[in-house]
Formats: sequence, C-alpha cells, structure tokens
Amino acid sequence: MIFACGTRFFSIGLSLPELLQLDRESMTEFWYDFDQALFNLFTLPLPSACAIAGHAIAGGTILALTCDYRLATAEKKLLGLNEVKRGVPVPYLADLILRQTVGDRSATELLYRGNFIDTEKALEIGLVDEVYQNEHLEERAVERIAKIATHPQHAFTTIKSNRLEAIQLRYEENNRSKNEEFLNCWFSLPVQKLLAIAAKKF
Amino acid sequence: MIFACGTRFFSIGLSLPELLQLDRESMTEFWYDFDQALFNLFTLPLPSACAIAGHAIAGGTILALTCDYRLATAEKKLLGLNEVKRGVPVPYLADLILRQTVGDRSATELLYRGNFIDTEKALEIGLVDEVYQNEHLEERAVERIAKIATHPQHAFTTIKSNRLEAIQLRYEENNRSKNEEFLNCWFSLPVQKLLAIAAKKF
Amino acid sequence: MIFACGTRFFSIGLSLPELLQLDRESMTEFWYDFDQALFNLFTLPLPSACAIAGHAIAGGTILALTCDYRLATAEKKLLGLNEVKRGVPVPYLADLILRQTVGDRSATELLYRGNFIDTEKALEIGLVDEVYQNEHLEERAVERIAKIATHPQHAFTTIKSNRLEAIQLRYEENNRSKNEEFLNCWFSLPVQKLLAIAAKKF
Repeated sequence: MIFACGTRFFSIGLSLPELLQLDRESMTEFWYDFDQALFNLFTLPLPSACAIAGHAIAGGTILALTCDYRLATAEKKLLGLNEVKRGVPVPYLADLILRQTVGDRSATELLYRGNFIDTEKALEIGLVDEVYQNEHLEERAVERIAKIATHPQHAFTTIKSNRLEAIQLRYEENNRSKNEEFLNCWFSLPVQKLLAIAAKKF
Repeated sequence: MIFACGTRFFSIGLSLPELLQLDRESMTEFWYDFDQALFNLFTLPLPSACAIAGHAIAGGTILALTCDYRLATAEKKLLGLNEVKRGVPVPYLADLILRQTVGDRSATELLYRGNFIDTEKALEIGLVDEVYQNEHLEERAVERIAKIATHPQHAFTTIKSNRLEAIQLRYEENNRSKNEEFLNCWFSLPVQKLLAIAAKKF
Repeated sequence: MIFACGTRFFSIGLSLPELLQLDRESMTEFWYDFDQALFNLFTLPLPSACAIAGHAIAGGTILALTCDYRLATAEKKLLGLNEVKRGVPVPYLADLILRQTVGDRSATELLYRGNFIDTEKALEIGLVDEVYQNEHLEERAVERIAKIATHPQHAFTTIKSNRLEAIQLRYEENNRSKNEEFLNCWFSLPVQKLLAIAAKKF
C-alpha cells in the first residue's frame, strides 16, 4: 500500500478547529478511533510506503510513521512533531515507532523540542529512507514496495510481525492509560488556550 | 570462542537437499535442535567472535549473529538473509539479534528484501564490526577476544547477560509459536516448490 | 536541572578507599541508596543536562547517563566504564541507559573492554550530544534545557515518561537480583584484591 499526496501538503495533521468543538465524550470517541486507525495501518500485513511530496507535520509525520518505508521530496518540505509546544503528548504508538525507527537520541530531540526539520535532515537521522525529485517520487515508492510484494506472503507477514512485535506488546499494555493522559492534557484549561491560538492559523 | 572457516565459504547455511527429505516430525526435531544450538552459542558465558573469510549467507549470517563480534575479510564476500525469497521467515532468534545489532531500518532492509550485501556494506551498517585482509583476519579475531577474556569472569558474564536479556526474554516467551510458524511455511506446497528449486543449486 | 563541575574532574565515581571499609551489610545499604539516587535523577520530571568540563569516568559516566542531555568540553577529557576491569558489573540502570543511548554495538564495546574514550570519540558514538569550549559549556547547557522547560509541563513529563518506560520496566523487574550479583562480585576475594589495588591510586 502506498500513501501519496499533493506537492504542497502531505498532511498537516488533525483539524484543530473542528476538534476543539468536541466535548470530552466525543473527543474521546474520535481519539480512540484515530488511534485504532493508526494501529491498523501500522500492522497492515502488506509492505507499505509513503511518498511525501509536501509538508508532513504533526499528524502528517504520525501517519508517515505507520508505513514500512518513507520516501520524500528533495524540495524543502517540513516534517516534525510539535505536540509538546501545544501542550499534548505525541500519540503513544507514534512515539514508540519513532524511537524504534530513528533511535533514542534523534527521537528525544524531535519530541522534546517540537521543532520541524526539512526532508534533508530527516534523511540524515533516518526519519525518511530516501529522497527524490518530485517527478520520480511516486514511481520510486511503487518500485520499492513492488519487489517486496513478490515474496511469498506468509514469510513476509511473519517477518513483518517480528518487526512490529516489541511495539505492539507495549501498545496493547499501556495504550489505554496513555490515551487518558492525552485527553487530560487536551482538556486542561492552559492547553485549551494554546490549542485555540493554534487553531486560528488553520 | 572463535569461529573460523575457509576462504571460500564461512557457511552457506543449512543443506536444503538433505532437509527436504525430512517429514514434518523429523524436520521439527531438527529445527528445534538447530534453534537450541544457536541459543546456546548466543548465551555462551565467554566472549565470542567469528572470522568471516568467505561467504556467510542465510544460515552463515545466522551463525555469525550469535557471536559478540563479527570480523570479516576485505575481499568481496557476501552476507545476508534471503529466507523471505524462499518463503520462510528468518529464525526468530536471528531476527531479534539482527535488530539489536544493526537497528530497525537496516534490519528491515535486509529481512524484507532478502538481498545479499558485501562485507564493505556489512561494515557500513554494523553487521560486521571490522574488516581485515585474509592473512590478518584470524589473528585479529584472537586479539579482540583475548583482551576481554583477561577480565574477571563473573563481572564479564553479568555484563554479557545484560546484553542478552531483552532478546532472551522475548525468545523464551515466543519462540515455540515462531518455530511452528516457520514449520507451517516450510511445509506449505508453494514453499516446498521454491525450496526444491533452490536445492538444485547446492 | 543541570549538573556542572570543575574543569579537572566532572566525577571520577565512588570513593573506593571508603567503600572498601564497609562490611556487606553497610555496603548493601549504601549500594541500594546510590542506586535509588541514580533512578531518581533518571526519572526526574524535568529536562536535565550535564556540563562535563572534566574527566567523567566510572561513576562519573554513570551520573552523566541519568541526564536527558550530555554536553562536554572540547578539551581532551575522558569518559568510560572500567568496572569490568575491577571485577564488578556496571550498575544495571546505567547499563540499560547506555544501551538505549548509544546502541548495542557501542555499548558492548565500552562495557566489554572497559576502556576510557575522550570527549571527541564520545561525541562520535553518541555518549555525549554536543562538545564546546569550556568557556561556553555551562551557558550552552542552560540554553538547551531552558527552551524545553518553556513547554507545558504535563505534555513534557508524559513524553519523557515514554522515553524512560522500557528501561523503568526492566529496572523494576530485575534490579534487586542485579544488585545482589554486584554485591557478590564486590565481596569475592579476587575482586577485593583488585579493588584494593585500584584504591591505592585514589
């Protein structure tokens, strides 16, 4: 499976203006659904890649992390997880995948500081695997997955499940309490104010 | 302990022609014995190294992964895990060690694609630790282990057991079901056909 | 929180001459207290950094590992964990943090060999994050933490607790038995002799 997008935005994440209208019950329902969707993408029993031609920030980076491979444009587009600046933690699953993908020090740097980085820096730290000119990007993403998809299916899914295993175990054990922590942050008064300010830029 | 070999092959792994003659009961018995042997090498309470002077593919790379250090020839010899192309997963223990040794992204690349890499590339990603000319290779492997073997034994074994711990825990928890998955793959009809084709090259 | 020090020593670790006078009961009490102190520093719900202007060996490196960030002098000062040469394992918590911080291969190299490395090499393997001239070192450490400390507290502590989680889980499960192993090593006769020799250099 391949995620692609326009050349301006891959995804800039969740729509804050809409989410801020939800009460705790509705937001809780949405958040668990969103979380389950990410988990389903992450555990997809197929090779997956994304072709990041535009900015992929916050939810955009989170979506990209669910894929086996991340290919990105050579143009100056941004990735990153600025959740900490808004007063909320990064979704637990994305945190776990990021640490496994780029290692402890690069993950800590992205998560603690909340700054965006361009695709060149993302390549350097391993947040993206390859960088191409826009006109070749989707083609390369297809090529990368297509070869792997020719392998016998059962062997591939077992090998992929080994890769997911450590994350899946921690996710299943802790995710409920992490989601509650997220929602507690989200609905605290100072954070609602920060989110309202951020929502104005949408 | 040091593993060495001839300059043509370090090990090209299990003998497919012989294994394909085994019925499920005999293959199961062999597979659990092989798996236990790898685990015993991995948990050896001594420093261990291998001197890879020749090709070390599939089972050869797996054997090398059980050592504390992997030294290899500067000649163009191949390493890699092509199991996925044959339709079977890499043994669980080897998968776990590989991920811990070279990190998630390099491990995924080797496991998903099933391609071989030369010792220079293996050095770059950390699959081997050092590369030497053949005439110095075994001597260097001895040197590397000898210094460590002079440390007080109990301190070394405790430090080594810390290194093994995360893998050992997951291995003991999941290995039985992973071995059954391997055997299910092995005895499926399409995979038996792929293995029969591969066996002709032996 | 920031740890700083003089330009000669950051910390050269525990005072062997004093510790060697303790009987098993007193040493056990000290060791569990020391261990708890390290754990408290590691799990501090604030961003933390150390400014390593002088040598930081054995306990000095261990102390530095409890911080989120390690900044060091550009001068030729040493870091490292030589416990294996003295006949004792590195404290379990430090072992776990080191592996998560610098990865399996660099951690194994430091722990198995017990050699010291200079700050330049430490930067290369990721044991320190940044290197500066002494006159800028503390200022830079303050800058690094200050920006992060402006983020909303609850989001930061949740993100930090995700970073600590894997280590904390293993620590809580195994630390008691690891401490007993340490004490068994410490009080074995050959190790007491090695420690007595080392104590003379203090």
